[in-house]
Amino acid sequence: MPSFAQRVATMEKSAAIIRNLFGSMTDPDIISFGGGAPAREALPMNVLREIASEVLAPDKRGFEAFSYGPPIGMLELREIIVNDLLAPKGVKTNPGNVLIGSGGLEAINLICQVYIDPGDIILVERPTFVHCVEIFEMFQATCISCQMDDDGLVIEDVEEKIKQYNPKFVYTIPTFQNPTGKTLSLERRKKLAEIGTKYDVIILEDDPYRDIRYSGEELAPIKAFDNSGHTVLANSFSKIFSPGSRLGYVVASDEVTKRLFDAKTATNSHTGMISQVLCAEFFKRGLYPAHHKMICDLYRTRRDVMLECIDKFFPEGTVHTYPDGGLFTWAELPGGVNTTELLKEAIQHKIAYAAGEGFFTDGNGLGTNCMRISFGSVIPDRIRLGAERLCKVICS
Amino acid sequence: MPSFAQRVATMEKSAAIIRNLFGSMTDPDIISFGGGAPAREALPMNVLREIASEVLAPDKRGFEAFSYGPPIGMLELREIIVNDLLAPKGVKTNPGNVLIGSGGLEAINLICQVYIDPGDIILVERPTFVHCVEIFEMFQATCISCQMDDDGLVIEDVEEKIKQYNPKFVYTIPTFQNPTGKTLSLERRKKLAEIGTKYDVIILEDDPYRDIRYSGEELAPIKAFDNSGHTVLANSFSKIFSPGSRLGYVVASDEVTKRLFDAKTATNSHTGMISQVLCAEFFKRGLYPAHHKMICDLYRTRRDVMLECIDKFFPEGTVHTYPDGGLFTWAELPGGVNTTELLKEAIQHKIAYAAGEGFFTDGNGLGTNCMRISFGSVIPDRIRLGAERLCKVICS
Repeated sequence: MPSFAQRVATMEKSAAIIRNLFGSMTDPDIISFGGGAPAREALPMNVLREIASEVLAPDKRGFEAFSYGPPIGMLELREIIVNDLLAPKGVKTNPGNVLIGSGGLEAINLICQVYIDPGDIILVERPTFVHCVEIFEMFQATCISCQMDDDGLVIEDVEEKIKQYNPKFVYTIPTFQNPTGKTLSLERRKKLAEIGTKYDVIILEDDPYRDIRYSGEELAPIKAFDNSGHTVLANSFSKIFSPGSRLGYVVASDEVTKRLFDAKTATNSHTGMISQVLCAEFFKRGLYPAHHKMICDLYRTRRDVMLECIDKFFPEGTVHTYPDGGLFTWAELPGGVNTTELLKEAIQHKIAYAAGEGFFTDGNGLGTNCMRISFGSVIPDRIRLGAERLCKVICS
Repeated sequence: MPSFAQRVATMEKSAAIIRNLFGSMTDPDIISFGGGAPAREALPMNVLREIASEVLAPDKRGFEAFSYGPPIGMLELREIIVNDLLAPKGVKTNPGNVLIGSGGLEAINLICQVYIDPGDIILVERPTFVHCVEIFEMFQATCISCQMDDDGLVIEDVEEKIKQYNPKFVYTIPTFQNPTGKTLSLERRKKLAEIGTKYDVIILEDDPYRDIRYSGEELAPIKAFDNSGHTVLANSFSKIFSPGSRLGYVVASDEVTKRLFDAKTATNSHTGMISQVLCAEFFKRGLYPAHHKMICDLYRTRRDVMLECIDKFFPEGTVHTYPDGGLFTWAELPGGVNTTELLKEAIQHKIAYAAGEGFFTDGNGLGTNCMRISFGSVIPDRIRLGAERLCKVICS
């Protein structure tokens, strides 16, 4: 058979991690803290069924929903993004600067299509979201990680590495970061936007969790401080609406949006119109604010239960983050535990998490005592049961 | 701003053609023979509204439809593809060898991710589908075109060019080709499959129109004659079901499917689940056979009206194809008409078509007297009106 493209080898390591993550989600008896899916209770199923039943009729929006759509995305939904989701956060933009893609990951993929050549450097967080590392490696970029502390990326380290490596992107998940749940401080957000301009580097801001804030103070996106177009914002409807709808978006300058349009037409031409119609109707009918409050309340409870259980059951010396939003916490275990090894045993005991190691691009044994614990999709009683099971495995 | 990736320059020419094609579809007063969309009447809107209204409920398939799905696609839909769409055509395969993507174009994109490095050669038809040329050029491949006659690709020319250029793919739309409406003969299908094996070249068979056959004899796909895994079959639900659902698929060997899975997770993780649930239900309920007959009858009528009008109104010396299926015919005009120039005037007269030139990868003035005439989405009365208008423009 003909040889595969070179990117197949470049992406092999991260692809294997992703394959494993998907593979471990299939057994319904397992209490999984491993995935990143929203709660079943956070999906507005009944209301979407009603909307579908009404608007998919031929004399309503059926033709639009079942036809080819504009590659840049449905205007009405782009207006909702601009007015309902971005303007209140201090991001001023126009529908012409928003491109809708098939989920937040496609938003990242498309911006790579526009910018990344083999050998380019991308600065990432340490640890970072492995699924995006897979994308970066498919584009044959090299990921270099930067230090984080409790306030997110350490700006001095980013600046130093920009000088050293001349990267194309600084990739950051500033709010309730995946995998740590940490949030970049306001001051650092301003500085990152400035650094993008100063060093002519794209700040790729991936912000899918930002609207699931259930404590602490709201912070403006990095994009709100961008005066030069160097910050490109990617976001997703997966966590606030529905992952199965595959809706995400990129906010960028005129010139970049034009190239994103080309990359989109050469990827899959347009994003599913059934989803876009249902999502636009959901917002247009004013259903989002109450839904948003409901999901934030739901996830706050789950976080509280999860952290309480970690404090109660996990071995002394365990350190965990205290996320003000999102779906994850990150725990560092004491006593030389290897979480990759432990996971096999955990799965025998019908409990899963995401082993920490996979979120570090550097290797070198980083994160081998860490785990990402996703509480978002597990009901409180099962969080308690799962935490107990997990502790037994850790302490055995 | 940082420089764009090299592929942005490589794809510029084809991207500009695609941008123009999308741009010309916006004025509702224009009778458009330009696009490739299915007929409004061919979209099963009422029945899908009913299905959605029933199955999207939380106690039915709502959770599945609104959640993350498997990257390879929903098993039930892959089984339908294998049993209902491929087996009757002589293609024997398994659900594990089918990957569902966001439309037929994404199927092509993903197979490029797996195989194409910059500088690779792809043999294409002359003329060929410009949208796929855009994909190939995004991957920085070089397209070399092969001769076609009334029976499709000329195999001797393909074989010669394989020897000369050592290509990665031979890209063909064997059935009711875009843009010509031509169909590859049975004998040549067998030969192409053999050539793939003999020369270790991927035969990329793109077959979205095959099920819209309304005259002539059914022909097995090239994939049915593939014994070595060298033929990779891409197809789409856009023409037989709905383009807005964004559903397509690739059929490939185990090893290639594994790599397609990785490319899919690094592109957009999975295909929209709402669409997959609705499509699977549509087939499961046995609604496809009657729908299929209805759309074939519909398009046969439109083809007959279109060809009758061309014969009646177009200038003497016009040559057109006689498609046995699909949505297009291809006309060569006499007397030095330049169809690219003429299109501007045509649009003033509220009539559009796709100018021939853009479908030739070689340049050199090929196709400047040709046009792709898409009759699929225009009702018969407007086909007549549009053909009259077009003739006035041509003959003025």
